[in-house]
Amino acid sequence: MTMGWHMMLQFTPALVGCYIWDGNHSFEMIRRSKECVINVPTTDLTEEVVRIGNSSGAEIDKFKTFGLTAVRARRVRAPLIKECYANFECRLADERLILKYGLFIWKVVKAHVATSPKYPETLHYRGEGVFMISGRSLNLRKQFKPGNL
Amino acid sequence: MTMGWHMMLQFTPALVGCYIWDGNHSFEMIRRSKECVINVPTTDLTEEVVRIGNSSGAEIDKFKTFGLTAVRARRVRAPLIKECYANFECRLADERLILKYGLFIWKVVKAHVATSPKYPETLHYRGEGVFMISGRSLNLRKQFKPGNL
Repeated sequence: MTMGWHMMLQFTPALVGCYIWDGNHSFEMIRRSKECVINVPTTDLTEEVVRIGNSSGAEIDKFKTFGLTAVRARRVRAPLIKECYANFECRLADERLILKYGLFIWKVVKAHVATSPKYPETLHYRGEGVFMISGRSLNLRKQFKPGNL
Repeated sequence: MTMGWHMMLQFTPALVGCYIWDGNHSFEMIRRSKECVINVPTTDLTEEVVRIGNSSGAEIDKFKTFGLTAVRARRVRAPLIKECYANFECRLADERLILKYGLFIWKVVKAHVATSPKYPETLHYRGEGVFMISGRSLNLRKQFKPGNL
């Protein structure tokens, strides 16, 4: 499934919060397995991101239909998507807000990230069918207190 | 305070999740008042964003020091920052994950948004003192199912 609402929550261990609509085919599979892989696509996968978000795994095999490669994960049973820039293997850390808000809190148990480019071109959903493509980076490190880095 | 980790959680009513570190001067004020205003800055405020994030309200008056204008909110006691592109007046919707994860769940009770530009240049924190500046927009609305818009 395509997922647009998510946030970092903590560094050590890394925790990530994700919203998953309970109408999604993936919702019950993820809730019951208590595992998932979060795959980060780049703009070369824009077409796939949109098509995956507008079809259902109850009707088609999305890996096959969209030409994606499933790779075995190291620490969870869900597969990685090989074509993605980064993949985060996750186990459920907190389920208290799932039924009320669709909010899953995940602990990242294994991360895979491409070594280049350093700043890939990523997609960020604005809503209403519009995406923002990541722009330039601005390094202001020198203006930070060391404890804030 | 400057805040970098946040997400949408729901549209009606609009719910937003935010991470606030419990070492922040703002943490207890926000937790006790159960109210806040989330102000969205654009890149013309980059310098202020960094300086506000690297100083403490326990030591300085940030509105005065950084030349920002406090405007009275309509439905909460915290002020808006006039210079920001958008301001969301919020009341606490769920406090269950505050102590464990620093995660506040807010209900937006009043929104103020500039009418132009449609897509302002915003800042997105990458960590390590580096920001990503929002890039171009890509409208793929025609490829969406109506129910997903």
